[in-house]
Order: sequence, then C-alpha cells, then structure tokens
Amino acid sequence: MTEATKVNPDLQRERDNCTFNVTELTNLIDGGAQKTEERRKREEMVLKEGIHLDEVPSEYLSHKEKYELAVKKACYLFKMIRRLQEEENTGMENYQEVLGGSLGSAILRDGSPLTLHYVMFIPTIMGQATVEQQVLWIGRAFNCDIIGTYAQTELGHGTFIRGLETTATYDPDTKEFVLHSPTLTSYKWWPGGLAHTANYCIVVAQLYTKGQCHGIHPFIVQLRDEETHMPLPGIKIGEIGAKLGMNGTNNGFLGFDKVRIPREHMLMKNAKVLEDGTYVRAPSSKLTYGTMMFVRVVLVNDVCSYVAKAVTIATRYSAVRHQSQPKPDEPEPQILDYVTQQHKLAIGIATVHALRLSASWIWNMYNNVTAELDAGDLERLPELHALSCCLKAISTSDAAETVERCRLACGGHGYMLASSFPLMYGMVTAACTYEGENTVMLLQTARYLVKAWQQAKGGNPLTPTVAYIASVSAGRRSPPWDNTVEGIIHGFQQVAAGKIGACVANIEKRQRTGMSYEDAWNMTSVQLTSASEAHCRAFILTTYFNETENQIKAVSPALRAVLLQLVDLYVVYWALQRVGDLLRFTSISERDIEQLQSWYEELLIKLRVNAVGLVDAFDIRDEILHSALGAYDGRVYERLMEEALKSPLNAQPVNQSFHKYLKPFMQGKL
Amino acid sequence: MTEATKVNPDLQRERDNCTFNVTELTNLIDGGAQKTEERRKREEMVLKEGIHLDEVPSEYLSHKEKYELAVKKACYLFKMIRRLQEEENTGMENYQEVLGGSLGSAILRDGSPLTLHYVMFIPTIMGQATVEQQVLWIGRAFNCDIIGTYAQTELGHGTFIRGLETTATYDPDTKEFVLHSPTLTSYKWWPGGLAHTANYCIVVAQLYTKGQCHGIHPFIVQLRDEETHMPLPGIKIGEIGAKLGMNGTNNGFLGFDKVRIPREHMLMKNAKVLEDGTYVRAPSSKLTYGTMMFVRVVLVNDVCSYVAKAVTIATRYSAVRHQSQPKPDEPEPQILDYVTQQHKLAIGIATVHALRLSASWIWNMYNNVTAELDAGDLERLPELHALSCCLKAISTSDAAETVERCRLACGGHGYMLASSFPLMYGMVTAACTYEGENTVMLLQTARYLVKAWQQAKGGNPLTPTVAYIASVSAGRRSPPWDNTVEGIIHGFQQVAAGKIGACVANIEKRQRTGMSYEDAWNMTSVQLTSASEAHCRAFILTTYFNETENQIKAVSPALRAVLLQLVDLYVVYWALQRVGDLLRFTSISERDIEQLQSWYEELLIKLRVNAVGLVDAFDIRDEILHSALGAYDGRVYERLMEEALKSPLNAQPVNQSFHKYLKPFMQGKL
Repeated sequence: MTEATKVNPDLQRERDNCTFNVTELTNLIDGGAQKTEERRKREEMVLKEGIHLDEVPSEYLSHKEKYELAVKKACYLFKMIRRLQEEENTGMENYQEVLGGSLGSAILRDGSPLTLHYVMFIPTIMGQATVEQQVLWIGRAFNCDIIGTYAQTELGHGTFIRGLETTATYDPDTKEFVLHSPTLTSYKWWPGGLAHTANYCIVVAQLYTKGQCHGIHPFIVQLRDEETHMPLPGIKIGEIGAKLGMNGTNNGFLGFDKVRIPREHMLMKNAKVLEDGTYVRAPSSKLTYGTMMFVRVVLVNDVCSYVAKAVTIATRYSAVRHQSQPKPDEPEPQILDYVTQQHKLAIGIATVHALRLSASWIWNMYNNVTAELDAGDLERLPELHALSCCLKAISTSDAAETVERCRLACGGHGYMLASSFPLMYGMVTAACTYEGENTVMLLQTARYLVKAWQQAKGGNPLTPTVAYIASVSAGRRSPPWDNTVEGIIHGFQQVAAGKIGACVANIEKRQRTGMSYEDAWNMTSVQLTSASEAHCRAFILTTYFNETENQIKAVSPALRAVLLQLVDLYVVYWALQRVGDLLRFTSISERDIEQLQSWYEELLIKLRVNAVGLVDAFDIRDEILHSALGAYDGRVYERLMEEALKSPLNAQPVNQSFHKYLKPFMQGKL
Repeated sequence: MTEATKVNPDLQRERDNCTFNVTELTNLIDGGAQKTEERRKREEMVLKEGIHLDEVPSEYLSHKEKYELAVKKACYLFKMIRRLQEEENTGMENYQEVLGGSLGSAILRDGSPLTLHYVMFIPTIMGQATVEQQVLWIGRAFNCDIIGTYAQTELGHGTFIRGLETTATYDPDTKEFVLHSPTLTSYKWWPGGLAHTANYCIVVAQLYTKGQCHGIHPFIVQLRDEETHMPLPGIKIGEIGAKLGMNGTNNGFLGFDKVRIPREHMLMKNAKVLEDGTYVRAPSSKLTYGTMMFVRVVLVNDVCSYVAKAVTIATRYSAVRHQSQPKPDEPEPQILDYVTQQHKLAIGIATVHALRLSASWIWNMYNNVTAELDAGDLERLPELHALSCCLKAISTSDAAETVERCRLACGGHGYMLASSFPLMYGMVTAACTYEGENTVMLLQTARYLVKAWQQAKGGNPLTPTVAYIASVSAGRRSPPWDNTVEGIIHGFQQVAAGKIGACVANIEKRQRTGMSYEDAWNMTSVQLTSASEAHCRAFILTTYFNETENQIKAVSPALRAVLLQLVDLYVVYWALQRVGDLLRFTSISERDIEQLQSWYEELLIKLRVNAVGLVDAFDIRDEILHSALGAYDGRVYERLMEEALKSPLNAQPVNQSFHKYLKPFMQGKL
C-alpha cells in the first residue's frame, strides 16, 4: 500500500477491534447479501462514468454556473440511466432506485433540475390522467422528449392548498381553459426545474366553469417552445433566487396572463369538464391523498440516508482527531474517547436504524392501504394519513438536528463545505418545510388522535397504531413502572395517551367558557403538537424495538448483541430526554431515573468499541459521502488541504483586489 | 404616500393596536434617548455612503468574486471610518461601535477580511507587546500601513491550545527565532484575513530556547512583501476553502519552512527571551486570560443582535402572511394568530432582552474584574472565567436555535437567501464553535461548579454567582414550591445545585470503584454539561428578572406591563421546557405544571397584540435587516419578486445550457 492509500492507523485499530462482522450488518440493512451486491454493482456502474467529478468544485462557482453544471450533470446522468435501462439486468429498471437513494445525490449534491420530471410530472400524469391522455403524454415524458414539472405552491400559499389563487376558467365557445394569475401572490413559486429547465408543467388551479368554482384541479400546460425554449406568450417565468441549499434545483416562478389551453389538457381521470362546460365530480375526494402520502413516506427513507452519511463522517473523524490532555503524562486521546462526544454520535447511529425500520414499516402499510384503496376500501386511509404526517415531521426534524449535531461535533472543520455537512443540512432542513410544514403536519395527526380519544371514550374500537389510547382513556390505573426497554416503551404510550387526554380536557374546558371549538383548539395547539410528537415517539420506539426483535432471529450472536445495545441506547436516550413527561404520566421514580442515567453511560462505553464498525456497515462509498472528514481511509488533514488547494482563489499568490483596493487603502490613496 | 412606500395594512393595524410607546422601549434598550439619537446618526452617516449597495447581490457571485467584493467594501468602510474619526463628534471615535454592532455586518453581511486586524491584531499588540514594541507597531497598524491578523488555531488543534505544534526556536548566534511547521497538522488554519489579505500576523508558537520548550508565545511575523504582496520566502499561505457561512472573511492557512524573524518580534510584555537565549518567565500566567474572556463577553452581545434581527423578520412576516381557514366562513387569519406561531416568536423576543441584559451584566463584571486585575487582585478571575464560559455556550446555542426557529417559522420563504436567515445562521452557528467549543466551555464551568460544591461542603464561603449552591449542599430541605416567577427562578437554582451535587456524588462513587478521577469525570461528563447549563439558565433567569425590575422603575405603566409579561413568558417557558428537572429537584406538583401551561398560553395571547411593536422597538433599519420578509413596510411579496429578478439567471429567457445539454439530451443526441 502506498502512503496515499494507507488507512489512518487510529481508524485501522478501530476496525481491528470491532466485535462483529461488518458485512453481516450491511447485508441486513440492504435486505440480504444479494441486495448489497446489486446496490454495489449499480453504484459502480454509475460512478465509473465519472459524471460526479468536477473540474472546479461547484461551491466555488457563481449561482448561474452552478445551474449550468447541474443541467449538464443531470442530462448526462439520465442519458446514462436511459442507456442502462435498455441493457438487461443492470438493476436500472427503476429510476427511483437510482434517484431516490444516495447515488443521485452523490452526483447532483445540491439538487437536480430534472428531479420533478420523474418524481412529480410523470407520476401525476400516471395517477390523474385518463387513458387517452396517458397515451398522448406518457411516452413523450418517459422519453424526455418533453421535460415537465409540477406547479402547485404559490407566492402567497403553500401548505394550505385550498387557498391557491391561480384560476382556470372554461370557455365553452373555444373549448379552452384560460389560465390566469389574478394577483402577485397567485404566481406559482418554488417548483423545481420550473425556472429555466422544464418546457411543460402540471399546473394546479381553481377550476371555474359556468360561473362556478369547483376547487383545485390539475392541468397540463406548455411553458416554452419545444425548439427555441422561449417562454410562450402570456407565460411569465424565471427563477426565484438563491437559497440556503438545493441551488441546483432551479426553483422557479410562473405567472399566467390569460393563457389558453385545450380542454383536453385538464387531467380528467377523476373529475371532468364536459365540452359544454358541465362539471362532473370525482367519485371520491380521498383518492388524491395518495400521491401526497407516497412522497411523505418516501421522504422518511430519504432523510435517513443523510443521517447515515452525517454519522459516518462524524464518527470516523472522531476516531482520527485527537484533543486535549486529561491525564498529564498521557498523549491526547481520540475525541471518540470523550463520553460527551459518544453522547452526540451514538444516538445518531441508532437514529438511522430506528428511522429506517419505521420507514420500511410505514412503506408496507402504505402498500397494503393502497391495495385496499384500489379495491374500494378506504377504511385505513385516515390512520395511514395520520401516521405519515407525524412521522414526516419527526423524522425530518430529528434528521436535521442530527446532521447539525454531527457537524458541530466536528468542531470548526465541520463548518467547511469540504466536510459535506452544510450541503446535507440544506437538503434535510428543507424537508422540514416542503411536502407539508412540520407544525401543520403534527396538528393534522393531533386531529386524528383527539378523534381516537373520543372514540375510545365512546367505547368504540381503535385502529392498531392508536390502540394504546384505550386503557388510559378508560381511566385504568397505570401499572407500576418497569425500568426495562419494554417498560419504557409502554411508558411512552402512557405519555402520549396522557397528553392527548389532557388536550381534550383543555379544549372542552375552554369550550365551556364559551369559546368556539376552533379557538379552543388554537389555544391548546402547543400542547396538541406535543401530544402528536409523543405519539410518534411511541410509534418509532415500538417499531424499532419490534422490528429489531424480528431481525435478530437470523443474525450471529455478536451482531445481535450490538443491535440490542443500539435499541437500548435509543430507548434510554429518549427516556432521559423526556423524563419530565415520564414523571408526569407514569410512576417512574427518581431512583429509576438515576439507574437509566447509569445504564445510558454504560451503553455509550459498550458501543464505543464498535462505533466505527457500525458506520462502516452503512457502506457509503467515498464518492457518495464526498467528505474530507469522513473518507474510509481517514486521511482527514491531507484531504482538507487537498480540497483547500482546489479553491480558485489559491491559483494566484496575489489576488487582483490587492492592487485595486487594498494597496491604495493602505497607502491612503483610495 | 405612493404605492411603493405604503405600509402593508395588516402591519399598520398591528402598529395602531400596540399598547405601549415604541420609542420609549427603543430608548430603554439603547440606554437613553440620546444614545438612540447617536446610534441613528452613526447609522445614517455610514449608510448614506452607499457602500452596502451591491450591483449584483453577492449571493450570485463566485467564491472568488465574493472575496473581491468583500475586500472592496471593507476598504471603503474603513476609509470612511478613518475619515469620520478625524472629524469631530461623529461618534466614530471607537471602531468597535461600528464594527461590533449590526452596522458593520449590514455592509459586510458574510464577514470581513479586515475584522481580525482590528479585533485581534491591534489588541494583541496593545496587550502583549512591550512599550518599545508598541512604538514600533501600533502606529503603523492603526494607520493601516500594515494589515495584520492573529494565527493561533492549527489544522490539528483548536480549542486545546497547549497542543499547538508550530515551533519558534531561538538561535542565539543570529539573535533570531526560527519559525517552523514540523507537520501538516501544524499548519495554521482558520485565521480570518490570513489567506490573501493580511501582510503581517501574530503567530502563536511553542517557544524553544536552549533546548527547552517553554510553551506557547506570540510572535509578530511579516507574511507578504509590503509592495508586491507576494508571500515571503518560506511562507506557505492560501485560503482554506468555502464554508457554511462567513465567506467574506478570507480564512487562511499558513505553514513555515524555517522562517527567521528578529528576536524583537517576540511580544515580550509578559515572558521574555534575552539575547543569549535565557528565558524569563511571565509574572502571572493568568494575565493572558484577559483577551479570551473579553472576546467571549463581547460575543454574547453580538449574537444577541442577530436574534433581534431574526425575530424582527419572522414577526413582521407573520403579521403579513395569511394561511388556512380554521373557521369555514371567515378569511384566512394572519399566521401570527396561531398560538403555535406565537409560541415560536414570543420566546425569541424575550430571549433578546434576556441575553442583552445578561451580556451587559457580565460586561460590567468584566470591567470590574479587569480593574482589580490591574491592581494585582486576581480573586474574582476564576468566577468571571466560569461564568463567561457557560454564558458563551448557552447564548450562542440559544441564538443559533432561535434564528433557525424563526427561519422555519417563515416556511419556505425563510429558506430563500433574500430572507436573510441563512447568512445570519452561518454567522451565529459559527460562534458555537469558535472562541472555545461549546461543550468544552460547559465542562470548564463545570469544573468551577464542582469546586464550589466541595468548598461549600467544607463550610467555605462561595462567590456570589454560585452562592445558591450552599443551602442545597448543606442538605437543607427545599421550601414548598412557589408557582411565581421568583419561585421558578429559585427552583432553577435548586435544579442547578441538585445536578452539581449529583455529579459530585457520581464522580466519587466511580472513584470508589477504583476509577481515576479523570475517568470518573469523563464518565460523568454528560451530566456535568447538563449541570453547567442549568447553572447558566439560573443565572440568565435571575439576571433578566433583576435587571428588568431595576429598569421598570423609570418607565411608563404601559411599557412596564409589557416588559413584565416578557419576563414572565421567558421564565415560564423555561420552566415548561425543564419540567423534568423541576419535578426531580423541587416540590413542584402536577397541578402547578398545569397552571404554568395555562399561564404560558395566556401570556402568548397578551403579548400577541404587541408583537410587532416589540420588534419595531429593536429599531433595526431596513438596510441593516436586509430582508425581503422583514422590511418595515411589510411589502413581502413585492420584495421577494424584486429580489428574484436580480438573479443573473433571469437576465436571459433561455440559458445557454439548453442549447448545450438539454436540447441534445431531449433529442437523444447528447
């Protein structure tokens, strides 16, 4: 091995000391050895093309150049995928496998201007267009003859989509819809790829026909000339400007000045407008929930992959970095030896597993419910909706917090873009807002929980994910505290049920003073979000525990021990974070809490030896991780310097601003 | 008033409904009406020069162009200050007034390459150079004939400065020091202005003379030729690369290849090296604490000004933004009407006051202690050190959290750079790491607290800021819970004392099992940081309450009511956040907690009507706020669009990447 490929000795020692088989865990995470092999093959195929390599790292480019580079890379990436799809057995049959996971984000690290074409434009046509419309559009879209996006959010309206202002007014004389933006706030604002990339677009607008408004409906609209790419008449379009992150996504604005489209451009799988302007209602309004829930469910997995990257970087860095000298005659320890550092990292590692298993659980539920839906059974839709809302909120906010905690755990070097943390944070924190703002999401779940409480009170049966409410709402005394993982999980259910009960009591109390239900709800809403969070924590803890219990049946004793330690750590960590809730709603004692604290500290020490092995098992290639601090070989300082030298500012020893400004200023001649 | 200068009617209505005199509060914050006038005059003088205006907003520039713009603006800013200083009565006599506050950051929003010249280079010469050395350097530095910076941190060492590796070896033959970077990790890394701006530098290095190492000492080193700006022989210098924020600061790296400097370039006010190489020790090693504490104390005020900006933006936006329709037949309410939104904003407003008063309290203490120090009295130094460490940690982390909470409270639009949040977050979160990493800071305070506990146990008197420990350590029973602000503050002291006591008990218990003190400390360190935080919370709550009680004596009844509501809110908010601690260490009951929750919700409603007035009182000019969402006139959507249109990408309807990549890709010809 040459100097340049040698692994840092501290990191090597960590690997030598790992007590379990790292590959076994990787296979478990992937869902089997073959899946691991397939994933690795896919990564190799994509990465060997070298599209991810930049001459100058994109962080040094101007905003405009960043966009141009993103278009270039996105085109080459999709060209390659198109080619690989045509070949057989490349594992590229599914766009999502490549786009959704870490692989796509390794190539387009700050977002892609083509993502919404695949993630929203095509799926919306598939889900909401008639068969005739699909014949017309799907082929061209799949082929990328046209590039589309999805325009819903407006300058003045985001999460509350009923308030959208763009109008689509049917004109029976010409059999056309007239799309119009009546106000500045009605401009579409935010859609990715809309600014300069897409030439077609699904537009969500308020449908007017025969003088009546029928609420929002989707329309397909051509935005730009297919040959010249010039915006069509009446289309006012551009980009919304620089953002905290995702500067490769080309988010745009769009205004209509009475733009006419044929009647057939309304997507009419559900509701319809006939030639004469007659409106035909959709069979069920709940059918449109589907896509929104799909995206939220997928999001959980998505943010999870960022958490895995973040803890991989921070853990490896912590094994390489040495600091301070607690004992006078000994060398500076690895910062991984500090318990405060372990406290920041171990929970991050456990969070990856907890969220991944929760994501996969809700993914199964989603598929079951969708199948039932297709068979006309809508019964479990509200439960899925409620669960997907709070899980979206908690997983994205936990993920954002974990990424930042990992960054801060790397000290100053985490602040460098070369660490990869800042770009990741930009991606993850965005998810706290898009696809349903998190506070709104928690309040949506709270509505379901309050309803469940009232159902239980009325003696009605509850759906499985809220079944725990029944015993608390019936006023049954809580059992004596059991200071085990199962006991804590049960305690979290009592907390959630207790909080929901307290909310209901508060709302009713306020109503009795003459307050309207809506105002009483609003006054109680801080507590409602907290109840909703508690419910979600109980769900994640339960799922993580149960799914791990299932998984470990088939693993080696060494790995089993570590996986159980991780579950213990996660559960005890959250118990200590929520001691106040447990004290209020369960019979936990001060002695129990002190025991939990010691248990937690012991778990940190136990997991210490396997920290590097645990993140190695996430099996994230250096090209995908893209971090000077986190590479497999641990050459942290060498890579930091190599990255610094790529800055164009370092190409000249003296910058021109010296002659133009600095020297005249120093000589008093400016 | 023209359309373009009209205030948004929602915002105007908020102002009309405000119950107190906004100017009265502004004056109170500034320290009197005359101070307000002086500040405004200073702002007007600087801003009328127009240095803050950019042709193209800097967020659209390349990394290199950002630096060049920062140099240009920094030179013009300091040229102007130099000129104004020469004139009389401009209030510009003190650089810090202009640089430290919001004004400097309004012009150089992403950091300045000249800051360290004023903040570290000149002060270090003043504090650590002999009179003869000052004669030589101070004039040139004040005049900006030379531009300096301060290089301490290295690639491999930050907070732990004893571990620095750069060497300065005295050669008695030539009477020179030889500066050398023995390893890659010994390269200086991070100093602002070091990369391409400064031509001189204070370098902190391990001093070797007569074969012995005497620890770290400061040296003044010329880096670049004064005429050509070319790096001098043996100087390896450049920039460290792009960062999460502060991309105008020109952070650099610096390596030495046996660079020789005259003996007189060691700053010798304290320790000395004689011509023959004899080392003369400094009279007291504690003297060097001063500057570090100064910076930490100033930092509290500094981050506070960012919190004030953040809540101003989020509150005004929340008055303008409407969303959802909780009541079927009513219009969409302002989002400020949602209690969940008030929950995010009100605590932010209170935090500004709490931190500002704490900052001013510790600033007074700092000045007193420094005066005592000059008189040879070192007694209160450890107390000041302990308090400045935890206050630095808590104020920066609270500030960073508040800025992010405000950003997220603005939904998607907060994610735009035009909101100003992302740049602010970059500045504030950096302060969690620099000048002493926050976890390390908390553990420094914890050492003092543990010592105080042991002193109290030994019956010794305690210093004022930890005096509350005495009664708990003596095992006195806590008084019955008192559900008032004073009662809660007392409760927080009990929590802090209780946690310190628990830490001491845990450390001793672990030592009894044969563990070394250092290992026992490490095992207990998660609890130690928590004790340290609790101590700091108790200090901030106490100070905020006491200082407000003092201030309100001289204010109008209307303002007094609001200021007291804010204190109540702050104290009750933190009580609810720390319910677990209160349940463990005080006699608070479930009923008390429920009352606190109702009290909190009522306070939110009471403060609602004055929310805009409260942030208006921070009196931050639009040019300093620099936010499309937060401007005084509330023209949120118009400004967002105006900012978007400044993006160079919007200058052409079709970007060149369409012809180069997108069209060939769509046509299958790429």
